[in-house]
Amino acid sequence: DIIDNHVQKLVQGPDSPDDPHNTLYGKKRHIGIVFSGGPAPGGHNAIAGVFDAAKKANPHSKVFGFILGPDGILENRYVEITADLVDTHRNMGGFTMIKTGRSKIDSPEKMKLSRQACKKLGLDALIIVGGDDSNTNAAFMAQELKADGIQVLGIPKTIDGDIQVTAESGETLCAISFGFHSAARAFSQNISNLCTDAGSDLKYWHVCKVMGRVASHLALESALQTHANITLIGEDLADYVDQERIKAAENAGTVDYTAYGITLRHLSRLICDVIVRRAAHGKNYGVMIIPEGVLEFINEIQIFIIKLNTIIGDYNHIHDVDFHAAFPSLDAKLDYLRRLSRGISDKDASPIWNARDDELFNDLPTFFQEGLLVERDTHGNFQFSQVKTEKIIMDMVKDYLDILKEKGTYKVGIDPLVYRRFMADAGLDAHVYGEVLFKNYGGTAHLLVKHTIISMKTLKLALEDAGLLSPDGKIPGVVETIYQKSVPNFKTQNHFYGYDGRGSNPTRFDCNYTYNLGLTAFGLIANGATGQMAVIRNLEHDMSTWEPLGVPIARLMHLEERKGKLALVMEKRVVELDSTAFQVVKDLREEWLAAGPGEDHYRKPCPIAFSEDGDDNRPITLTLNAVDLP
Amino acid sequence: DIIDNHVQKLVQGPDSPDDPHNTLYGKKRHIGIVFSGGPAPGGHNAIAGVFDAAKKANPHSKVFGFILGPDGILENRYVEITADLVDTHRNMGGFTMIKTGRSKIDSPEKMKLSRQACKKLGLDALIIVGGDDSNTNAAFMAQELKADGIQVLGIPKTIDGDIQVTAESGETLCAISFGFHSAARAFSQNISNLCTDAGSDLKYWHVCKVMGRVASHLALESALQTHANITLIGEDLADYVDQERIKAAENAGTVDYTAYGITLRHLSRLICDVIVRRAAHGKNYGVMIIPEGVLEFINEIQIFIIKLNTIIGDYNHIHDVDFHAAFPSLDAKLDYLRRLSRGISDKDASPIWNARDDELFNDLPTFFQEGLLVERDTHGNFQFSQVKTEKIIMDMVKDYLDILKEKGTYKVGIDPLVYRRFMADAGLDAHVYGEVLFKNYGGTAHLLVKHTIISMKTLKLALEDAGLLSPDGKIPGVVETIYQKSVPNFKTQNHFYGYDGRGSNPTRFDCNYTYNLGLTAFGLIANGATGQMAVIRNLEHDMSTWEPLGVPIARLMHLEERKGKLALVMEKRVVELDSTAFQVVKDLREEWLAAGPGEDHYRKPCPIAFSEDGDDNRPITLTLNAVDLP
Repeated sequence: DIIDNHVQKLVQGPDSPDDPHNTLYGKKRHIGIVFSGGPAPGGHNAIAGVFDAAKKANPHSKVFGFILGPDGILENRYVEITADLVDTHRNMGGFTMIKTGRSKIDSPEKMKLSRQACKKLGLDALIIVGGDDSNTNAAFMAQELKADGIQVLGIPKTIDGDIQVTAESGETLCAISFGFHSAARAFSQNISNLCTDAGSDLKYWHVCKVMGRVASHLALESALQTHANITLIGEDLADYVDQERIKAAENAGTVDYTAYGITLRHLSRLICDVIVRRAAHGKNYGVMIIPEGVLEFINEIQIFIIKLNTIIGDYNHIHDVDFHAAFPSLDAKLDYLRRLSRGISDKDASPIWNARDDELFNDLPTFFQEGLLVERDTHGNFQFSQVKTEKIIMDMVKDYLDILKEKGTYKVGIDPLVYRRFMADAGLDAHVYGEVLFKNYGGTAHLLVKHTIISMKTLKLALEDAGLLSPDGKIPGVVETIYQKSVPNFKTQNHFYGYDGRGSNPTRFDCNYTYNLGLTAFGLIANGATGQMAVIRNLEHDMSTWEPLGVPIARLMHLEERKGKLALVMEKRVVELDSTAFQVVKDLREEWLAAGPGEDHYRKPCPIAFSEDGDDNRPITLTLNAVDLP
Repeated sequence: DIIDNHVQKLVQGPDSPDDPHNTLYGKKRHIGIVFSGGPAPGGHNAIAGVFDAAKKANPHSKVFGFILGPDGILENRYVEITADLVDTHRNMGGFTMIKTGRSKIDSPEKMKLSRQACKKLGLDALIIVGGDDSNTNAAFMAQELKADGIQVLGIPKTIDGDIQVTAESGETLCAISFGFHSAARAFSQNISNLCTDAGSDLKYWHVCKVMGRVASHLALESALQTHANITLIGEDLADYVDQERIKAAENAGTVDYTAYGITLRHLSRLICDVIVRRAAHGKNYGVMIIPEGVLEFINEIQIFIIKLNTIIGDYNHIHDVDFHAAFPSLDAKLDYLRRLSRGISDKDASPIWNARDDELFNDLPTFFQEGLLVERDTHGNFQFSQVKTEKIIMDMVKDYLDILKEKGTYKVGIDPLVYRRFMADAGLDAHVYGEVLFKNYGGTAHLLVKHTIISMKTLKLALEDAGLLSPDGKIPGVVETIYQKSVPNFKTQNHFYGYDGRGSNPTRFDCNYTYNLGLTAFGLIANGATGQMAVIRNLEHDMSTWEPLGVPIARLMHLEERKGKLALVMEKRVVELDSTAFQVVKDLREEWLAAGPGEDHYRKPCPIAFSEDGDDNRPITLTLNAVDLP
């Protein structure tokens, strides 16, 4: 039975047709393969692996590729995979050979159509290359098609890296899905270029959102690849506990549940804090990585969604008129919420919406407030994917930086050597003015203008108070210049990396990994497995030690709410906070932030380009324009 | 005199200190170098070239790098370039070694500070690595510092590729600025990945805006590198002439000046046309390249800006109240314009704002109308860089596609094999239904649902009319499925490529080009040149035939309006419509569009990744997580 089968070690296949294992491997087979979900680099090599293994074991075996994903099965659209087709696509990115699609085979009707399609092609086995949902699907199909003698296997694909398998013993069976490395490298090459740009121009904070809604693996790997100054990890934010609130509650003899999980306000403060710290050392620029799904890890948002659903539901229940009709504008809605929090509404102070809720909610950018207050889909689910994550966070950051500027705590540090040279050139006493202008004059660190000096007016006052300027005097040009250099101009450029990584060519690692997954899938078929996912152990070691395995998919499943219904699905693996990779990023966070003297610690993930790369070694425009048209 | 000097051919430098040229080359010199403007790949190699040449000619010579661009000169901030520093940055992207900045040395005051800085360092020569403005600046400085015996040279840098020099004889002296190739390759790698993604998923139109505001060179090169389906070239759009309008005017015996130059409406129609044509062949996806500056090439926009400025100016002149105060909302402004066009305002039909203006203006997306109607900067200039070019164009495209959908002309073509298999499986007569459903049933081309069938209701009617369905009958499931497949869902993903290209590592071409530009700049200094720009001829040929030259910058200058003032500046070179490169792109436009049977013609500009690339050959996450924390 599928549910109970065990991790399967592969019996090695034959090197010659005389081998005794030949009865297993050498049988003539028809094998179907299909891609499911978004493209991931290396998919073509998985097909190549299956094809090569099948043809080697028996040249009369055939491999069929279903076109356009599971729809190809349902609609009986396929091509026979040929050596030519395989060789044209080997080591190439994308799923262009047979395309992909997003349909699910999730009804008895569709299951029936699939059975018909498999039987029509005389399939012995079907391989589904896909993510968690698709592998779940594979397990159900395996169960369904068992009676027909058709084996169904899965291959773990997702650039998000959230398919991982650990044995009950704690041993890692599948450390990462395929495509993850290539996508992370593609993102990282771009992000690394932005690091170089930021460090050349000293003008922008580049904010890079990277794909990955459920887990922050890609952000984590991008951090390791590039050493960007700031990387948010959703799982880390979800784990945040506000120790101050905990302590305050303890002192008051109560428990403060709002202390668990980070608020957007607090997150924006943390980001501002490190931006300000870098600026103090003259670095009013940098690179920040944000995982696409970061908002889903912020407890506050989840709670807002539940509370607002309840408030709107209650209102509609009590009144004759719909909430959205009663309060058509955002202002009217906000006003209702405010009154609710103060208890001056039609009921007493709301137990659901308190003053803290109201205050935090008013901190959010308007467009996000609107987003949270609109009517929900039928399941009441909030469409996180519609939200401009980086804009919400950076809008709040910008607002707070403006406040810090007013407070005089956000300043660009001045190189003391530059300051002294300027003053010497102008014939002014650097020391006398330094004591008046800076709060840390004297050391070797970058000089910080006092927080009381935040305008030409306050600068003038400070000079007057120190007796360096008469009330009708004019601020010396050089002092004004120095002050202007200390005034930060916070400029951002937003970037989103996702689709370009999905379509990139596979890295050597993914080329090898996927080809071997294809070989493994065929090995599992030869060994009679079904309902299993092909995986490879020891990926972190030399390829000679890689160990192909079959993992029963059913064992990886658990109950989860999907689209408002409980469903048995494969668990997505998020970033573990006690994993070595996260701990390393955490330990190096301060170093990569580089909020101190000295250079940034950016890393270039890719080799320099000074090598021969074929004929295409100059601009095509140039080559063409050197030729006259006939 | 600088203005009159000629293109300078270089006297070759010595191979040994005994060489007779040694008097020229071997003199001990102090040379300053500075970056100006945005980073471009290869800048470090230009420094390396100057440094290596200077040290080889005389080991006692020194090279100084001014920090943070021209400000470094004004503020006397510099480092001495050492062999270590050069070797750390050789072949690496960005301007991180000495940073860059955007100041101009454009006042007598600044010129004086620069002279002081150069004299303080005992400079014999100053090299400015920058774009058109910076080279213009170099020429003025050369003139200014000539009396002091300080030579000033330029090196042509800009990823935009708009610095090009042609001799009066028509000979190309400088075919392209440095950084262009590397940036175009970086963009193209990403765009090519999107081509792969589009062709795997068949789900999105990827809209890629690439840097380049004044000229479309980068878009043109990206088209050549990737063979994306659609590439807009600003210069081409500016050249558009509406032959229909011309003819209509001729027939009426008049001249229609509005026939020259494309309107946004017409551009969006042209884009829709090719999207619809691809969809008809089952390809409701693709990749489109838009140059950042495309709107500046659209005559209509320029005219709107002039007209609106005049209208607002006139209003303010005549009335006591400011236009923006009189018509605070967009609706009020649009209403005034409409009345103006109809002549029912306080004066007769406006000669400035006619019905056609009003109609075209009302076609624009609201946010762009608002943008065009806001108050201008002091020079009345429109800030094109603030406008979301791709959003304006794609909003209009989406609106018109919706109309075409309603009209029944935007349909996804159905593979006839799929149709017949579907019908056969359902036991229905493909031929009988085919004649009713499709306008082109019978051939081998993709099947197009008739334009009268645009909903389930019209589908039902068509079947009823053909006697295939009784009024109370139900549309066969398979027919409904076929119909649903023909309904297009137009989905876009927008991308902007710019900063990541600026910061990329230089390609081999740019590595060599920039190093040789550095050598050339030193050669020019040794030859006594000033006010010249180092260039290299024969870039399109093997490096052994490259010819270093000095081009007098003054000869490249012309009068141009910049920030509301006439200024003598170096001319930016746009894409020539009779250049071979553009003609090739134009000739292959239809092929790359691939609006016919068969595959897309996408090109991958970069090699596959299946090669050893050092230690970093697997995800760092994977490597780390295989290690236990101590």
